[in-house]
Amino acid sequence: MADYTFYTNPMSRGQIARWALHEVDADYEQVLVDWKDKPAEFLEVNLMGKVPTIVHHAEDGDHVITEAAAICLYLAETHSEAGLLPHDDERADYLRWTFFAAGPIEQSITSRALKFEPEGQQQMMAGSGSFDRTMDTLEAMLDSRPYVCGERFTMADVYVGSSVDWGLNFGILPPRPALVAYAERIQARPRYKAAKAVDNKLIEDAKK
Amino acid sequence: MADYTFYTNPMSRGQIARWALHEVDADYEQVLVDWKDKPAEFLEVNLMGKVPTIVHHAEDGDHVITEAAAICLYLAETHSEAGLLPHDDERADYLRWTFFAAGPIEQSITSRALKFEPEGQQQMMAGSGSFDRTMDTLEAMLDSRPYVCGERFTMADVYVGSSVDWGLNFGILPPRPALVAYAERIQARPRYKAAKAVDNKLIEDAKK
Repeated sequence: MADYTFYTNPMSRGQIARWALHEVDADYEQVLVDWKDKPAEFLEVNLMGKVPTIVHHAEDGDHVITEAAAICLYLAETHSEAGLLPHDDERADYLRWTFFAAGPIEQSITSRALKFEPEGQQQMMAGSGSFDRTMDTLEAMLDSRPYVCGERFTMADVYVGSSVDWGLNFGILPPRPALVAYAERIQARPRYKAAKAVDNKLIEDAKK
Repeated sequence: MADYTFYTNPMSRGQIARWALHEVDADYEQVLVDWKDKPAEFLEVNLMGKVPTIVHHAEDGDHVITEAAAICLYLAETHSEAGLLPHDDERADYLRWTFFAAGPIEQSITSRALKFEPEGQQQMMAGSGSFDRTMDTLEAMLDSRPYVCGERFTMADVYVGSSVDWGLNFGILPPRPALVAYAERIQARPRYKAAKAVDNKLIEDAKK
C-alpha cells in the first residue's frame, strides 16, 4: 500500500496538494473523485465531500487531512528531509503568509469571482479587508524578497504560489510585476511542472 | 521591552490572539488600535491595517505575525513549554481543523452574517461548501472527542474554539449540543476567562 491515499479531481484545488506531494517525493495512490458521483469510501473519510483529501497510512494508524493549506504544511512536517520546513527565523513569515493566502487572498479571489465584494462596514465583519489592500500587501511582500520566507523556497510557497498562479491565470489577480515574477519562479520548478503534467493529462483524457 | 507588541482592538478577532497570548503566558505590551485613526507605526508593520497583529521582539530580530490563526500556531511553537503543540499522532487533526476553521467555518459565518451564501455551482468555486455541510462536519468531529486533537486541549482549540464560541454568541452557528458543550469546555478555562476579562473591561471603559 502507498503511504498516502490522495482523493482529488484534476480540475480543483487538488492541484495544490499534488504539487506538495511531488515536492516531498511522497509515495501516493490517487483516487479520482467525480463531482456528481462521490465514492462512499470518500464521504466516510471527509463528510464535506471536498477534494483534496489525503489519508496518511502512518505507523500509528490512518490520519485524514483536509484543506489544501493543511495538507501542504502536514507534508512538510512528515517529510522534513525535503527541507521545506521553516528555520526558526522564518516561522513567522511561513505561518503568516500561508494563512494570509488561505484567508484574505482566497476570500478576495472568491468574492471577485462570485461578484460579491464586501464594502464599508462589511469589510470589518468579513475580516478580509478590501481587494486592493490585499493586493497591495501581497505585492509589498513579493517586492521585498523572492520567496515567502526570504531567499529560500519553502512549503509556504507551494500554497501561496498556487494562489497567485491560479489568480493570475484566471485573470482575477492584477498582473503586477512582482506577482507575475513570483508566479514565473514557481512555474520554473521541476516538481511543479511534473505535478501539473499529471493533472493536465487527466484533464485532456477526460475530454476524449 | 516586552517580548511581544500586540496591536489589537477589544471588539475584534484580537480577542483570539489575546487568549493565545495568555495560554502561553507571554510577556506582551498592548497597543490599542482605533478603527478610524490607525497609528502610522501600526500601518508600517501591517499594510493591511488589520488587528490582531503581533511583533515578536526575538533575539534574531523583530518578526511580524498577522492573521489570528497564524498568531495562535506561532505562539504554540515559540512557547513549546506551554505544551500546546500537537504530538506526532495529533498533527493531522491540529492542522486540518485549524484550517477548517480559518476556511469553511470563517466563510460560512461571514457569508451568513453578510447574507450572501453561495449556491450550486458557486459552492464549488467558493471551496467552502454549504453552511449545513460545514456544520455537520464540525458537529461530527466534536461528537467524537472533547478537543480537536482528542482528549487533550491544544492551541488548535484556541482558534477553533474561538470560532465556535463567537458563532454561537452571535446566533450564527446552530446551538447543536456538541457545539454548545465544546464552547462550555472552552469557556471554563482559567486563561480564557482571564483574557476575556481584559477585553471586556476595555469595552466597558470605552462606553464611559
